[in-house]
Amino acid sequence: MQEQTEYAQAIKTKYPEQVVIAVARDEAGRANPITLGWTMIVSGQPAMMAIAVANTHYSIETIRHSRCFTIAFPSSDMADAALFFGSKSGRDIDKFAEFDCKTESAKAIDSMLLSDAVANFECTLKSETAAGDHIIFVGKVVCSHINTELKKRLYTVGPGHKLGSAS
Amino acid sequence: MQEQTEYAQAIKTKYPEQVVIAVARDEAGRANPITLGWTMIVSGQPAMMAIAVANTHYSIETIRHSRCFTIAFPSSDMADAALFFGSKSGRDIDKFAEFDCKTESAKAIDSMLLSDAVANFECTLKSETAAGDHIIFVGKVVCSHINTELKKRLYTVGPGHKLGSAS
Repeated sequence: MQEQTEYAQAIKTKYPEQVVIAVARDEAGRANPITLGWTMIVSGQPAMMAIAVANTHYSIETIRHSRCFTIAFPSSDMADAALFFGSKSGRDIDKFAEFDCKTESAKAIDSMLLSDAVANFECTLKSETAAGDHIIFVGKVVCSHINTELKKRLYTVGPGHKLGSAS
Repeated sequence: MQEQTEYAQAIKTKYPEQVVIAVARDEAGRANPITLGWTMIVSGQPAMMAIAVANTHYSIETIRHSRCFTIAFPSSDMADAALFFGSKSGRDIDKFAEFDCKTESAKAIDSMLLSDAVANFECTLKSETAAGDHIIFVGKVVCSHINTELKKRLYTVGPGHKLGSAS
């Protein structure tokens, strides 16, 4: 039976929620990673993915500038990187310089891949749509990569940025 | 280390993936449920959620007609309902008449809630955006509900519509 409640209460039932790290270069050419929980696949043919980024975040500028971005599925052993990239702003620091995270060059776009991620998807920007306090960016997947080792994907498993694996 | 591969291969690392059932009334007033894996939250203030629905699906017409929809988080004991609602078309059958699924009226919009779901979110349509073979509908959450019993959310845990709980 359903009971009416506040949204903040009802949405606590969402866990586990997937985590991605999106990477885009800013005007200075610096690759900037951001950790996001609000993401989904949006098309099969062609393959397309969407991310929702907060209006105030530096990543908005980087994606608009480069018109492409990588979506990485971080592995469950990348919780510290996900927390760091999700809590600092690329306006203030060079996140990849300050947190030791292995990267490699993307193949089809001018961006970076996260070497220890479960998978990486290179996307070209197809559209952006304002939605409340976030902007939805839709990207077309132009190149895909998986880890040569078998790894588990990282999830937010409970409130307060509690991260872990899910199965 | 990353290895370039086909998208179809790389995207298999996405599991577990959340499942929702969206419900909207058609022109005849019939509530039509559809099971979706492509969904995300898109805004905090105001609370907004998005779903991606295949271009060819009947749900496109129902959402455009009623301009509102419910997003239910089915519980892990609703796998059969999720499979049924996801594999039949509302063009051919009345899904709620053919599959026994307890419902109740929504409070703020003209739609239905799923009584055994973990939570239900009543949404008014704010935008739609074409993305490849799907359409992204964004809804503003205007009323929220949770189950009076503690239930686990349903996930797709592997390829081939393998459903279960995740923790």
